[in-house]
Amino acid sequence: MKLLYPTSLVIDVDSLKGFSVDLQPYDAKAATIPSQHHDADILVTWTNTVDNLKYAKANLTKLRWIQSLAAGPNDVLNAGFDPSQTIVTTGSGLHDHTVAEHALGLLLTSARRFHEMRDYQLQGKWPGHLGGPQPDRPKDRFTTLRDARVLIWGFGNIAKCLVPSLTTLGATVKGIARTPGVRNGIEIYNESSLPELLPNTDALVMILPGDASTKHALNAERLKLLPKHAWIVNVGRGTSINEDALAAALDNEEIGGAALDVFEVEPLPEGHKLWKTKNTVVSPHAAGGRPQEAEALIAYNLRRFIAGQDLRNVI
Amino acid sequence: MKLLYPTSLVIDVDSLKGFSVDLQPYDAKAATIPSQHHDADILVTWTNTVDNLKYAKANLTKLRWIQSLAAGPNDVLNAGFDPSQTIVTTGSGLHDHTVAEHALGLLLTSARRFHEMRDYQLQGKWPGHLGGPQPDRPKDRFTTLRDARVLIWGFGNIAKCLVPSLTTLGATVKGIARTPGVRNGIEIYNESSLPELLPNTDALVMILPGDASTKHALNAERLKLLPKHAWIVNVGRGTSINEDALAAALDNEEIGGAALDVFEVEPLPEGHKLWKTKNTVVSPHAAGGRPQEAEALIAYNLRRFIAGQDLRNVI
Ligand SMILES: NC(=O)c1ccc[n+]([C@@H]2O[C@H](COP(=O)([O-])OP(=O)(O)OC[C@H]3O[C@@H](n4cnc5c(N)ncnc54)[C@H](OP(=O)(O)O)[C@@H]3O)[C@@H](O)[C@H]2O)c1
Ligand SMILES: NC(=O)c1ccc[n+]([C@@H]2O[C@H](COP(=O)([O-])OP(=O)(O)OC[C@H]3O[C@@H](n4cnc5c(N)ncnc54)[C@H](OP(=O)(O)O)[C@@H]3O)[C@@H](O)[C@H]2O)c1
Repeated sequence: MKLLYPTSLVIDVDSLKGFSVDLQPYDAKAATIPSQHHDADILVTWTNTVDNLKYAKANLTKLRWIQSLAAGPNDVLNAGFDPSQTIVTTGSGLHDHTVAEHALGLLLTSARRFHEMRDYQLQGKWPGHLGGPQPDRPKDRFTTLRDARVLIWGFGNIAKCLVPSLTTLGATVKGIARTPGVRNGIEIYNESSLPELLPNTDALVMILPGDASTKHALNAERLKLLPKHAWIVNVGRGTSINEDALAAALDNEEIGGAALDVFEVEPLPEGHKLWKTKNTVVSPHAAGGRPQEAEALIAYNLRRFIAGQDLRNVI
Repeated sequence: MKLLYPTSLVIDVDSLKGFSVDLQPYDAKAATIPSQHHDADILVTWTNTVDNLKYAKANLTKLRWIQSLAAGPNDVLNAGFDPSQTIVTTGSGLHDHTVAEHALGLLLTSARRFHEMRDYQLQGKWPGHLGGPQPDRPKDRFTTLRDARVLIWGFGNIAKCLVPSLTTLGATVKGIARTPGVRNGIEIYNESSLPELLPNTDALVMILPGDASTKHALNAERLKLLPKHAWIVNVGRGTSINEDALAAALDNEEIGGAALDVFEVEPLPEGHKLWKTKNTVVSPHAAGGRPQEAEALIAYNLRRFIAGQDLRNVI
């Protein structure tokens, strides 16, 4: 059995030894994959180019399993792989800590207005209105996570990793997913509860995947349900927000602001209105991008694959 | 017995009732205090003007106890009150959550380079080098709190409140105080251990009070002990850092950067070099400034004062 692992990240190959599997590196950025590897059974992918994945689809005819290290399978599916023929597993779970930390950072930037402080700093001016004596937890502004009502839309692995940081800081957290219930001590609702939840939200954290079911989940109608002071943080996928509706809500000050790590088109195009809408923080898809403990997932799935057992993160 | 409370913040006076104490409001910004209140026994202070405190010192001759709501007693002492004659208690503990949250925000800003993202945003440019695939926890940069070695210099109430957030995010925390030992599960050293501690620090968080013993605690010699990539966050007092030495270390890239909420002179003067030193984040003394649950401290100390017991936070 042959497994190809990408050289686009540092993988501790030693931690994958011990199986009767031939472990071979390959260049995920190259337009082709050497012919001696066209017999590979397993392909691990990370930041592969479109061409590379299309080449793999056309030439690695014996592939039975693709382990992506990305959180979502979009690139693999776009290259034409059919999950009913080739098992596709994602790297969901490998980005929990990095994305959760970034989301927390964006929430604190929003609450503490670090972006506005920066604007003053660049002019060599002291933003006195942001310092010194301040009202404590005013009801009509989002100034702190302490006692803030945080709603996480897309309550999966990343959300579960974010929750302890939010509760440690004193926030009250609720979640939205497809299936309601209690998860990790947090009350989870489905989207039918949005009309009751959104008006009672100080910060809305979106961590939705980028599939058809989430397209423009946050639209003009739902934006109107948020309080005027509410901030939105999006670290999921840009497609889950209708950006025209968001831009209008920002510029009309119908919401407090938005800190966005993902966009419908990335890089955010030059001249795009979200560069300059009011109270907007632009982060360049920087939350994840560095799978952590990938070896543990690969080794776990590899053992189960050899044993004919179900794999983790199958799509 | 008469207690004067300031109108410079919202105090829930009802929660102080039930003692045989006459509770009277006063204006902490006024140059004088009405003569009918010159018989007060107890003065609660918050953002009093220098004149107001000096007036109190000269005219409130029966004062036996001053409860400041600020973390430090500097303003009360500067007005001439003598703690051997008038009990002075501080608001230490009332600012733990706010300052800890701000310190966490500055740490995440530093690690995630939100300040640099902002600079790009203002130019409508996508900072591609900060997003997309990234090396995971490189040893020679401070990019995340996960596995980061955080040293807190000044391990008091605020530090203890900050620790759970840091450990939740995966940081390894050590502390420096006057007395070594283990506190809240964290190993605390005294300053004699700095030569061993500083070279093994990714982020140094300074939360020292602003007294003579901490003046320029972080000087050129100690700055040189930090790794080239280490960031400094200061939410204590500006006087604890030699700013000339810091500015030189920043501009020579001898350290990774500094996120500063406090300065030797505040507001940071126009044209001061720290506005423009490399990798510097300027926050306008915005960490605290909003005492939380002040009523609980006042009521606790009031009961003990009436009972002739020792008060909390006596200086
Ligand atoms: N910004 C970055 O750098 C970055 C990095 C990594 C990942 N991401 C994005 O973050 C997303 C989430 O990652 P994750 O690991 O947390 O995924 P996950 O564990 O699969 O969780 C996804 C969550 O979204 C919910 N969900 C899916 N479709 C929904 C719908 N139509 N309506 C309501 N809820 C829906 C799911 O509900 P159920 O639990 O009920 O199924 C689940 O709670 C990824 O798909 C990826 O797009 C971004
Ligand atoms: N930026 C803001 O908005 C803001 C707001 C509130 C407070 N602050 C500042 O934060 C400071 C700390 O507040 P806190 O409530 O945490 O105070 P705290 O509970 O009194 O703690 C002070 C800590 O500093 C240590 N320390 C004092 N002098 C020292 C010295 N010479 N060398 C080494 N360690 C020393 C103490 O050591 P021991 O424990 O061994 O005594 C203690 O651990 C305040 O004094 C204030 O200046 C800033």
